[in-house]
Amino acid sequence: MSDERTADLGFARVDLERADRTGDPEVVYGAGKTPEQVAEILSTLHERHPDRAVLATRLSTEAMAAAAAVGAEVHTVARAATLGPLPATTGRVGILSAGTSDAPVAAEAALTVRVHGAEAVEIRDVGVAGLHRLLAVRDRLDEADVLVVVAGMEGALPSVVGGLVGTPVIACPTSVGYGASFGGLAALLGMLNSCAPGVTVVNIDNGYGAGVAAARIARAVGRQA
Amino acid sequence: MSDERTADLGFARVDLERADRTGDPEVVYGAGKTPEQVAEILSTLHERHPDRAVLATRLSTEAMAAAAAVGAEVHTVARAATLGPLPATTGRVGILSAGTSDAPVAAEAALTVRVHGAEAVEIRDVGVAGLHRLLAVRDRLDEADVLVVVAGMEGALPSVVGGLVGTPVIACPTSVGYGASFGGLAALLGMLNSCAPGVTVVNIDNGYGAGVAAARIARAVGRQA
Amino acid sequence: MSDERTADLGFARVDLERADRTGDPEVVYGAGKTPEQVAEILSTLHERHPDRAVLATRLSTEAMAAAAAVGAEVHTVARAATLGPLPATTGRVGILSAGTSDAPVAAEAALTVRVHGAEAVEIRDVGVAGLHRLLAVRDRLDEADVLVVVAGMEGALPSVVGGLVGTPVIACPTSVGYGASFGGLAALLGMLNSCAPGVTVVNIDNGYGAGVAAARIARAVGRQA
Amino acid sequence: MSDERTADLGFARVDLERADRTGDPEVVYGAGKTPEQVAEILSTLHERHPDRAVLATRLSTEAMAAAAAVGAEVHTVARAATLGPLPATTGRVGILSAGTSDAPVAAEAALTVRVHGAEAVEIRDVGVAGLHRLLAVRDRLDEADVLVVVAGMEGALPSVVGGLVGTPVIACPTSVGYGASFGGLAALLGMLNSCAPGVTVVNIDNGYGAGVAAARIARAVGRQA
Amino acid sequence: MSDERTADLGFARVDLERADRTGDPEVVYGAGKTPEQVAEILSTLHERHPDRAVLATRLSTEAMAAAAAVGAEVHTVARAATLGPLPATTGRVGILSAGTSDAPVAAEAALTVRVHGAEAVEIRDVGVAGLHRLLAVRDRLDEADVLVVVAGMEGALPSVVGGLVGTPVIACPTSVGYGASFGGLAALLGMLNSCAPGVTVVNIDNGYGAGVAAARIARAVGRQA
Amino acid sequence: MSDERTADLGFARVDLERADRTGDPEVVYGAGKTPEQVAEILSTLHERHPDRAVLATRLSTEAMAAAAAVGAEVHTVARAATLGPLPATTGRVGILSAGTSDAPVAAEAALTVRVHGAEAVEIRDVGVAGLHRLLAVRDRLDEADVLVVVAGMEGALPSVVGGLVGTPVIACPTSVGYGASFGGLAALLGMLNSCAPGVTVVNIDNGYGAGVAAARIARAVGRQA
Amino acid sequence: MSDERTADLGFARVDLERADRTGDPEVVYGAGKTPEQVAEILSTLHERHPDRAVLATRLSTEAMAAAAAVGAEVHTVARAATLGPLPATTGRVGILSAGTSDAPVAAEAALTVRVHGAEAVEIRDVGVAGLHRLLAVRDRLDEADVLVVVAGMEGALPSVVGGLVGTPVIACPTSVGYGASFGGLAALLGMLNSCAPGVTVVNIDNGYGAGVAAARIARAVGRQA
Amino acid sequence: MSDERTADLGFARVDLERADRTGDPEVVYGAGKTPEQVAEILSTLHERHPDRAVLATRLSTEAMAAAAAVGAEVHTVARAATLGPLPATTGRVGILSAGTSDAPVAAEAALTVRVHGAEAVEIRDVGVAGLHRLLAVRDRLDEADVLVVVAGMEGALPSVVGGLVGTPVIACPTSVGYGASFGGLAALLGMLNSCAPGVTVVNIDNGYGAGVAAARIARAVGRQA
Repeated sequence: MSDERTADLGFARVDLERADRTGDPEVVYGAGKTPEQVAEILSTLHERHPDRAVLATRLSTEAMAAAAAVGAEVHTVARAATLGPLPATTGRVGILSAGTSDAPVAAEAALTVRVHGAEAVEIRDVGVAGLHRLLAVRDRLDEADVLVVVAGMEGALPSVVGGLVGTPVIACPTSVGYGASFGGLAALLGMLNSCAPGVTVVNIDNGYGAGVAAARIARAVGRQA
Repeated sequence: MSDERTADLGFARVDLERADRTGDPEVVYGAGKTPEQVAEILSTLHERHPDRAVLATRLSTEAMAAAAAVGAEVHTVARAATLGPLPATTGRVGILSAGTSDAPVAAEAALTVRVHGAEAVEIRDVGVAGLHRLLAVRDRLDEADVLVVVAGMEGALPSVVGGLVGTPVIACPTSVGYGASFGGLAALLGMLNSCAPGVTVVNIDNGYGAGVAAARIARAVGRQA
Repeated sequence: MSDERTADLGFARVDLERADRTGDPEVVYGAGKTPEQVAEILSTLHERHPDRAVLATRLSTEAMAAAAAVGAEVHTVARAATLGPLPATTGRVGILSAGTSDAPVAAEAALTVRVHGAEAVEIRDVGVAGLHRLLAVRDRLDEADVLVVVAGMEGALPSVVGGLVGTPVIACPTSVGYGASFGGLAALLGMLNSCAPGVTVVNIDNGYGAGVAAARIARAVGRQA
Repeated sequence: MSDERTADLGFARVDLERADRTGDPEVVYGAGKTPEQVAEILSTLHERHPDRAVLATRLSTEAMAAAAAVGAEVHTVARAATLGPLPATTGRVGILSAGTSDAPVAAEAALTVRVHGAEAVEIRDVGVAGLHRLLAVRDRLDEADVLVVVAGMEGALPSVVGGLVGTPVIACPTSVGYGASFGGLAALLGMLNSCAPGVTVVNIDNGYGAGVAAARIARAVGRQA
Repeated sequence: MSDERTADLGFARVDLERADRTGDPEVVYGAGKTPEQVAEILSTLHERHPDRAVLATRLSTEAMAAAAAVGAEVHTVARAATLGPLPATTGRVGILSAGTSDAPVAAEAALTVRVHGAEAVEIRDVGVAGLHRLLAVRDRLDEADVLVVVAGMEGALPSVVGGLVGTPVIACPTSVGYGASFGGLAALLGMLNSCAPGVTVVNIDNGYGAGVAAARIARAVGRQA
Repeated sequence: MSDERTADLGFARVDLERADRTGDPEVVYGAGKTPEQVAEILSTLHERHPDRAVLATRLSTEAMAAAAAVGAEVHTVARAATLGPLPATTGRVGILSAGTSDAPVAAEAALTVRVHGAEAVEIRDVGVAGLHRLLAVRDRLDEADVLVVVAGMEGALPSVVGGLVGTPVIACPTSVGYGASFGGLAALLGMLNSCAPGVTVVNIDNGYGAGVAAARIARAVGRQA
Repeated sequence: MSDERTADLGFARVDLERADRTGDPEVVYGAGKTPEQVAEILSTLHERHPDRAVLATRLSTEAMAAAAAVGAEVHTVARAATLGPLPATTGRVGILSAGTSDAPVAAEAALTVRVHGAEAVEIRDVGVAGLHRLLAVRDRLDEADVLVVVAGMEGALPSVVGGLVGTPVIACPTSVGYGASFGGLAALLGMLNSCAPGVTVVNIDNGYGAGVAAARIARAVGRQA
Repeated sequence: MSDERTADLGFARVDLERADRTGDPEVVYGAGKTPEQVAEILSTLHERHPDRAVLATRLSTEAMAAAAAVGAEVHTVARAATLGPLPATTGRVGILSAGTSDAPVAAEAALTVRVHGAEAVEIRDVGVAGLHRLLAVRDRLDEADVLVVVAGMEGALPSVVGGLVGTPVIACPTSVGYGASFGGLAALLGMLNSCAPGVTVVNIDNGYGAGVAAARIARAVGRQA
């Protein structure tokens, strides 16, 4: 059953008015979907709204290829793809990541921010065990309207960053680690218990969610990029 | 050792320049402190900065009395006290709570928002099991620059609210519940796994942290109250 | 050792009088069984009771093929198969699911209901983050004698549904999610702590168990379909 | 703010139309409320609806006394009170409990059933370690439209009962136990993993929730008591 | 470095006097070892003690083949192999299992008992959801000197058995189950919290450990088989 | 309702034939019972069976006094009482404990063994951090038919003991510890994962259960004391 | 039974040669002991070894008074007491603590270090949310032979310190926090997952253990104080 | 962006001054890196500092081959590689392991110690279930400046070792085990709760971290090898 508001692809009913309701773009969550399904949903959404980008996340290598085959731009590190023109940006989000292994989650956050209409600036490899790296970029932190801080293992980076700035900080734990990291639980608990006030937290590896929240704040704050 | 920047009360070294660094007011975390200690820190901070409010949270009944005795205004439901004039407000924070038992955490969040320079509007008893109550206040949600959503038990309210608005949503789980709520863990996990994108989460019962984060966003967004 | 009451297939002793004792049909739990074993048990049970359906659940793609080869009807989404004529139905079960990924569990529940002698009506994609979809089907909820509500992630849907109706509600959490969903634990805890009174819960991904419980209630209530 | 639909007592907004919406009576959850608050809510609700009972649960000894002082009937074992005439009953609920220590939860379930309009029959001390006691009451199990099974420790009773009957079974774990019972977690997990199909589960110590669910089923099944 | 007491195979130092110290046979734990390593250790131990059996457990299909190639007898269900003559038996161990999926653990327990010098009698498919099956073999329980009870899911069988007999009962939880069974945790907790006094418990899936403990008791009790 | 087989005291139905069925004495679990209830049950059971002992465990100081007042012998360290003549003993149980704080659990185990008809020999303060103490009593370990090993904190003692003897070993974890002992969980997990084969485990602080299991084994082994 | 090596006080057997064996002083763990017992053990140990200090930890206010009454020096913040002359020191231990609430654990660590023969230097209130405080004492970190780092909440301090120095770092988590700190679990996991190599960890609130480990290292390194 | 202090390889920014800052060598953490990436980082670091060794850990078989191809020495058991000359050694670290399966973690610790400038002496197969093996090497324990103790399952070895020596002991739990070992959690908790004072702990399977900590201590203690 397809109508104006939804497109029924058999395996999924695609909501075509989401962007109107919330101001956010359409997003395809790729986990558990076949490459063909990802490509078909991307195409369907793009046809309805050719003037704005559709985002697909958590893509396998095969799904990235299928997305490319229907004209999408592939973002390899973020394991994501976009189809359609990106929006103009309002506001700026700084995205800090602690270690090299956190890169995919940080990249997903950055791409999500961009697709949701804010500028994304990535600052990488500023883990707390090498404090000089963070202090070296201290000034750049103040240039952002909101910060996303991505870290695995003990997840200490948001506490240190949160103590340096008055900017809103969104902490994103990753599953990077082993043993007693318990799949990111250690980082998650660390961030929830941050001694720096004003830090809020999203689910483990949820770069997308961190990006949506940050973009909403950046757009509201409204520095024109 | 006391100097210009800190006041050493013996049992605590009080940081007197915190407000200058971060734009946030001084805060006394009352848990584990005697009523006398709470009163003394409040007084010391107030003397240094008589022109702005000091906030004390997590106060026992006795600590609230001791705070009142040194001139502080006591906020019984929030189990908190303030000493000194409240700042002018910029931006507005809506604070929704699910049930009557969530009131203390919601009140702590609201007071924190106000002390941190934003307007706080509380909307109570809008738990998801009586959806008509939430839908009845639907329009008021859009009047806020950011929403704090406080809930215990299954913690479902942020997901429902997050699906209705494009505003940033900060979810605050409470320890209200019993048995398999495991002291608020069920609500915390529920909020972290919210199917509504853009919801961020703070620690269990952390109304203060939710308030700080919300106030920072509201002030940045900057609608003059 | 085979007798009138059991059939010993070597790898399993099949109970042939279960239906007489409980009023429920024979069921083959396919997980951990080879395609050949599934097919052989289906055939054996069907030969003894050709007049009523046998249900096989949790089938691999190979096991579904093997079941089809012995004449069974395959239900792909539910990953299940039935062999023999379905019973007449008494009572009606409404089966709500939150998201597309919950479809296999919802389909298993629906098929189980049907095989256990009640009518099953599926209502899909009514997750709480898009409340208008649930409210649009509000009237259909009252047409069921009992509701099965299937959801992963934060598992909030049963609370919302339980607040709308006076009908018995059986909540079925799914393992859909990642990170702090901990394989469905978040949804399970959310449902156990539902603020809507009268919600009962089954194991994670246990569409079969939810279906059995719902069918028993629907048959007892006894509206003839 | 009080109106026709709610009564605002300052510390709580009492919903006066709940019974009309759901068919269930008003209930006061006593945990965390003062004896005075319990008594006042009971009185207020009774004045509005003098023709039907109000139920108060989880009462301290002092709250039970305060309830008695405003005319309520106190149910000591259930730690509950009712004010107003009980409704006529439709359908019958059997409530089994494993050990003596499970009595308060079983009594809360039984009283809830009765207040919600169904007959409640308690069968006590039928724990699985003394199977002869359960088998001795085997016939009485079939006389109920639905069974509530209350057990702590390993929570095995619902599995045994569920294998004996085709009646819907609602399992209610209790926090009875010590050490690795982890406050009822062992019983909860045991019941969720029951090998008897058709068993559904409520939160630990949630006799009230089990009673509401059972009464709804019993009323729907509709054997006139 | 090899000497009279140990044989150094490079990848493992094999203790050749263990049987003398404890009265137990040599055992090779196959998990994590290559088929070649399993075969080599079996052969080495057998050469030193050709007059008594060596046991290898937790074997892959390939390791079972490699064991067979050096003359060992393979026990497929138990995923184990023995090399050398089995000892005479003293005492009798009854091994009960709840469901078909528990068979490998029960078989490992039975073989371990036999290799450790006691008679093993298996009783299968006596899960608590079909109590008549257990009651039908009631008399056979008394013929054993000690009982091993193997069950997954809710792990209720040891409680029921422990209430029927005065014999020592060793409960062995299995990882059979899904969702909230958490890999056998539910069964483990159920058994540890058994309301039947005198039940002791081993690790999840530890049929070997249950067999060693049972054989020691049976040999001590000493009924000649 | 009282009859020949049970005595109904209002708050409990006392099973008077348990000893006949299982060979074990009557036991009153004192936790959650008032001193008066403990005394009354002790007296009732004693009157019916004046020729054998009744055991009451987990007694408060007040309950021990009440038990003494009806003629029971009080065992202060074990927090238990016995009323009636102790049985003759068959077999011997060695009870080892690691530290001073483990004494109450070890004493409960020893008294339970004695009341259940076996000799109990306690060996105290042989924790693994002072190995010389354990090695000094090495010979005494072999004099027991079965060993109960009581330890808190890391629970390592059963592994060390289990490596020294071929005797059955029952490990009893205690809640002695703090922080990451998590109420005895660390000791429990340690014992379940013992690298010494043949160790079985009971619930945390369950000296009674360990004693029952050990006495049954000792009586079966049957060395006349 | 008392001899040269032990003193049997009835409630405890005191090991009088521990210091000779390990080079560490005698220590009385006060938790769970009466004030009288603490005082008696202190006195007994002091009489045997009047030339060196005895340490008592985890003392209640009453036990501190009892210790003072037998001549011990009381250390209020550490909740500890010492009796007898402190040893000369070798090596230096730096003890950093994050917040005011961590003071008791840090003080216990410092006193333990001192009693075990090393110099202890405390550096307080250097939590990561105010990085300038830590950086201000950067030079003092290098003056220690080993560092003990005490922190609750998210436990991030050891990672930051571990990235600044090449000195051995012992991390001690505290139970300071609430909600998802789970009694210190968050800090413990954070420290175990530290991204700074070379950090080792002790149990939650175990200032004593951290102190013993640090003193052993400092003494071995051997800078004469 | 590459400069004097870092080398930007595209997929990673390599810190070239780490050794100068901390005295530790460069280390490549191989998990999650391709064989080509491992080889490239090894080569780059070696070119900058040809006079000292670079260490790569957690290598797949393919990564070990790629490392060998660029001239690195491969350490198969440790799953690691080194490139460049090893440093002279100061101090000695004893590395004890409990069972054969713990060998890879122990080997990683030993290699890390050696690369970090201390002598490493391995003592294998001294698990607590065969105490004679540990006691046979008792004298060798005193020859080390610090001990690393590696064990899985119940993790009891550090407690036994810690009771024998006054040397600093670093405990390293491994994930060896199954069922209720929960991936090494049982061993980790056992070690954190050790009754032997002075034991510190690292993350599960973190032989590298144990090695770094031990080498720092050994170098500081400074016995010239």
